[in-house]
Amino acid sequence: MYFTSDNASGAAPEIMAALARANDGYARSYGADAIMDRLHDQIRATFQAPEAAVYLVATGTVANSLALSLYAQPWSAVFAHSDAHIAQDECGAPEFYTNGAKLIGVAGDHGRMTPDTLGQALARTGTGGVHGVQRGVVSITNVTEAGTTYTPAEIAALTALAKSYNLPSHLDGARFANACVATGATAAEMTWQAGIDIVSFGGTKNGCLGVEAVVIFDPAKAWEFELRRKRGGHLFSKHRYLSAQMEAYLTDDLWLRLATHANAMGARLAKGIAALPDMHLQHPAPANMLFPEWPAGTHARLDSAGAAYYQMPAPQGREAARLVTSWSTTEADVDAFLNALRA
Amino acid sequence: MYFTSDNASGAAPEIMAALARANDGYARSYGADAIMDRLHDQIRATFQAPEAAVYLVATGTVANSLALSLYAQPWSAVFAHSDAHIAQDECGAPEFYTNGAKLIGVAGDHGRMTPDTLGQALARTGTGGVHGVQRGVVSITNVTEAGTTYTPAEIAALTALAKSYNLPSHLDGARFANACVATGATAAEMTWQAGIDIVSFGGTKNGCLGVEAVVIFDPAKAWEFELRRKRGGHLFSKHRYLSAQMEAYLTDDLWLRLATHANAMGARLAKGIAALPDMHLQHPAPANMLFPEWPAGTHARLDSAGAAYYQMPAPQGREAARLVTSWSTTEADVDAFLNALRA
Amino acid sequence: MYFTSDNASGAAPEIMAALARANDGYARSYGADAIMDRLHDQIRATFQAPEAAVYLVATGTVANSLALSLYAQPWSAVFAHSDAHIAQDECGAPEFYTNGAKLIGVAGDHGRMTPDTLGQALARTGTGGVHGVQRGVVSITNVTEAGTTYTPAEIAALTALAKSYNLPSHLDGARFANACVATGATAAEMTWQAGIDIVSFGGTKNGCLGVEAVVIFDPAKAWEFELRRKRGGHLFSKHRYLSAQMEAYLTDDLWLRLATHANAMGARLAKGIAALPDMHLQHPAPANMLFPEWPAGTHARLDSAGAAYYQMPAPQGREAARLVTSWSTTEADVDAFLNALRA
Amino acid sequence: MYFTSDNASGAAPEIMAALARANDGYARSYGADAIMDRLHDQIRATFQAPEAAVYLVATGTVANSLALSLYAQPWSAVFAHSDAHIAQDECGAPEFYTNGAKLIGVAGDHGRMTPDTLGQALARTGTGGVHGVQRGVVSITNVTEAGTTYTPAEIAALTALAKSYNLPSHLDGARFANACVATGATAAEMTWQAGIDIVSFGGTKNGCLGVEAVVIFDPAKAWEFELRRKRGGHLFSKHRYLSAQMEAYLTDDLWLRLATHANAMGARLAKGIAALPDMHLQHPAPANMLFPEWPAGTHARLDSAGAAYYQMPAPQGREAARLVTSWSTTEADVDAFLNALRA
Repeated sequence: MYFTSDNASGAAPEIMAALARANDGYARSYGADAIMDRLHDQIRATFQAPEAAVYLVATGTVANSLALSLYAQPWSAVFAHSDAHIAQDECGAPEFYTNGAKLIGVAGDHGRMTPDTLGQALARTGTGGVHGVQRGVVSITNVTEAGTTYTPAEIAALTALAKSYNLPSHLDGARFANACVATGATAAEMTWQAGIDIVSFGGTKNGCLGVEAVVIFDPAKAWEFELRRKRGGHLFSKHRYLSAQMEAYLTDDLWLRLATHANAMGARLAKGIAALPDMHLQHPAPANMLFPEWPAGTHARLDSAGAAYYQMPAPQGREAARLVTSWSTTEADVDAFLNALRA
Repeated sequence: MYFTSDNASGAAPEIMAALARANDGYARSYGADAIMDRLHDQIRATFQAPEAAVYLVATGTVANSLALSLYAQPWSAVFAHSDAHIAQDECGAPEFYTNGAKLIGVAGDHGRMTPDTLGQALARTGTGGVHGVQRGVVSITNVTEAGTTYTPAEIAALTALAKSYNLPSHLDGARFANACVATGATAAEMTWQAGIDIVSFGGTKNGCLGVEAVVIFDPAKAWEFELRRKRGGHLFSKHRYLSAQMEAYLTDDLWLRLATHANAMGARLAKGIAALPDMHLQHPAPANMLFPEWPAGTHARLDSAGAAYYQMPAPQGREAARLVTSWSTTEADVDAFLNALRA
Repeated sequence: MYFTSDNASGAAPEIMAALARANDGYARSYGADAIMDRLHDQIRATFQAPEAAVYLVATGTVANSLALSLYAQPWSAVFAHSDAHIAQDECGAPEFYTNGAKLIGVAGDHGRMTPDTLGQALARTGTGGVHGVQRGVVSITNVTEAGTTYTPAEIAALTALAKSYNLPSHLDGARFANACVATGATAAEMTWQAGIDIVSFGGTKNGCLGVEAVVIFDPAKAWEFELRRKRGGHLFSKHRYLSAQMEAYLTDDLWLRLATHANAMGARLAKGIAALPDMHLQHPAPANMLFPEWPAGTHARLDSAGAAYYQMPAPQGREAARLVTSWSTTEADVDAFLNALRA
Repeated sequence: MYFTSDNASGAAPEIMAALARANDGYARSYGADAIMDRLHDQIRATFQAPEAAVYLVATGTVANSLALSLYAQPWSAVFAHSDAHIAQDECGAPEFYTNGAKLIGVAGDHGRMTPDTLGQALARTGTGGVHGVQRGVVSITNVTEAGTTYTPAEIAALTALAKSYNLPSHLDGARFANACVATGATAAEMTWQAGIDIVSFGGTKNGCLGVEAVVIFDPAKAWEFELRRKRGGHLFSKHRYLSAQMEAYLTDDLWLRLATHANAMGARLAKGIAALPDMHLQHPAPANMLFPEWPAGTHARLDSAGAAYYQMPAPQGREAARLVTSWSTTEADVDAFLNALRA
């Protein structure tokens, strides 16, 4: 009953097997390994983007930060939901990598920016000439921090606003696979076809050990990315181990299969909670993250049953939680949790 | 016959096995895993430093850069050999992490600073009051970029100079194990007992997939390190995979056993080259890195024999090379290379 | 009828005369001039702070940014009113000088933080351990961007909150003189006696050409300030011209006399507007900055009368303005403006 | 007998008069003043560059640092003479404004890079792919730190090398007027006609209070410069005082007349010293800066005669000095100094 985060899960067997295979013999270092040679095309095919530049890093924090640093100047405003991971959970890494860009929090229910809220933020920023920061880039997270998703059409509406100011758009896809499964969108539909310029394509939370691909749809940005990655200390000498993870992750749609399972476990959990009296979800939960609210005293009961998850702020007399399922969550885990809830 | 770099080798079987074991079940993320809990004490014991703060990162570039950033202000001078990795091979990562500190190249034969050359550099820097950069930190690399080593006494002589200016000293130990084996020094003798304040303790080049420990002998610096690591995007969510590598690396002195083998292969290669006519090593080669010089035409012969290594600048009519052995180099590799040389 | 800003005024005759006197002969450069020698004690006396470190710069932007950079780490949160100059009008200069600190906007009517709003912002920041930015420094502006003021007691209430988190407090005193005159507070009462650690003491807007003093009550910070000022390109070689301005500004309470006049002109303007039908001030106006709201059509009438000021956003069917008086505003200016308003 | 630096001199009467005139009445702030409106064209005419973008700042440090930041990325190498002011005397300001670019010291006698020494530095930098810093910009100082000058042809030879690597070239013209007078070159010949892309055109050392113009021959860089200047805290609110200095400086060739006098005083001093036994200049002295070497004991004699200047390192048994003349140096000053030397 481990629902703290999808990053508490291990790696899928297919990933571990690929790592073992990749360990054999010598390989060129710093991204010149043979697996990476193949992987460029594999990722481009996944995204139907034959020109895209593709790079691997090991953490989501740096995938996002490097992606933003390609498009945000030090004097830029980065527009993202107020609760976005880049705004709240990365200790200022985007500010570090951009040399001081300013994050502008955009409002919106359930962790989602709307054309209205984003439009207002865009309109009121950058109007002071040289005295204020300049509009720079829009960053959209899918799955959001509230566990909700954007459809490709919803993303397109936000990137259209960005484009009306000549701004590029970034997609934080730490849970990209879960978003694709939840919405039925392909990788292409979710990104460049919806106006996204650069995407952090997450593997770590969905069954890898630690790998994220940054996919840049404008290949003219490639060399700058390489320099920034090196300078950030994120170019792996034994790069083959990043390559191997990502190759296995994409092979035979493993990434989608793992996310399909994680989302199914999320749905099973959501359905179970919804059926219980005096409990509800604070946000829609189409993917693998749920924010239930329940009566006071429930935490103690779950704790004594051995359930692990994060407690969240709740209204007076109530309790709230964040539950995250993953590729390794079992039906038995979910049912045991629901039983403990009912007890 | 693969001698390009020790980072072209794979990971040792003990490391891979540890990774597989660590994959089982759920684990707390971001460094709170159970292996890391044990590892703190294991590293402290290795360094005989019960108070040291210990952190893991995945690349040597960031181990060095974060270490320097704890001690160098943006207006500081960092003193290192002119050929040091931090000066030549990290695309300005130290400048990035320190927000602009200035690297001062220190001269010295065979990749080694001497008390004389370091003393001169220290004396002529920071004399301009507010107009010039201020003396900040001394960084020593062991094994050096020329494949040579410093003994603990030689390190102590350099750190004593640093201390005479109230400066801390950093040790870039990307090949720390090879240096310890080559000199017979313990980890403690090589570091804090010789006046080192912070060390990048390398695992990647010596049989790991990608892990380096930063050992900070002044634990008051711990929290700042954690913030800087996170901000740099180097805090792994699935941290257990870093922990597992390092635990296996230290267990039963694996790190020393792997380096002993690498150095033995280096010695076998050195001995073989020295016995050949018209060939010599440009630098002493006590560890696992050799810089032979040989007659023109040798590269072509080796190439057709299938040998892989880096070519280096050489005097007119001559050729030079860099050869690196590792934990996975075999005697057969060495002998085949020597045979090709002789042919 | 020039009310756009107090920085549209020229310099007071006493300041110009001092500049001319300072021009005579040779002077040591970079802050070692004889006037600066005297000025240290003059500023310390003005602030009743015999230990304070005192430095001059030429713009308010850098006075604030350098002051913050002494106390905010790159991973720090800087708490300031959402409308503060450092947050809205300096193109990210504080982020530049702090290497990426994050400004947290604090709410509050009439441009003023309250213990409630600041307390809430402090409480909800820095609770995420290493994942979020850390509480760093509180910055208070007096006179505020809305033209209102804080009394020393109100400042003390805010700095007490800061101190409860062990945070230092900065005062942005671009209009420090106007605030002192408006509240009757002395420089000491307004700053260190109210818990302020560092103050940007403005001269430019109040009759100088371009000079601001940064007064640091903890002299241990002095040397770092000097390095940061030099590194920012703000150490003047012909420093005597900054010194001369500031010396004249403090001599015979010129700074208070100029602000007394500016505030009196503000009060005359406020009184005149209040007496007019269908007009009011959006914020209290105790100093030299007024934000009147009036019927649509008024701007056009004032414009044709030759009045200069900034137009501000207003409710539907209404118009709003910002009017700033200065040391050089005359009663005739004010009365002409009021006549144009009435017309 | 004040020869410490040309920044120890005051401002020329024409400059002071212009400042007084500019003080009259109200003026738009932040560079929108009427004088600056005229000045754009005046500077463009001076440089015969009708498209150039032109900005004013108050210090040479920031003129250079901002100029470099327009062309050097954080991962760039900036090539300059090892003794250049940007390398030795600005406390890392170029590193700060470029967010960490690396200065590469280029050798050369008498403070001057040669095509040979610059060519070697260019050739050996940036050859390591992503692992090393990238060639960024060449910075040339004229008058050099050794008091020597480059002719336009010599500058063209250096910028041609830069262009062969597609690099832009910067001219640090803190003593631009002295260089033009010494070589007979016009402003255009010395800059864009010789391949310079951006120039720091100094006023401070040559009779202004504190003003430097940055002239950017590619106007596409203009907006970025404005943002960087503001963000650095270098946009003056009462900008008219910068404008007024520069307008007077250019009017009726005042800048050339002042430098002609300074250089003449330098030549008088040089001639006098050369005529004395056992004394010589260490570098040619075509402008206003001299580096004499003389017998031990001379400093003491000059000191007791009241001469002020900087002492420099000298060979055993000898003494050396730096002497700088300026617009305000008189023939009497020079002759008194020579008399003291002879005594």
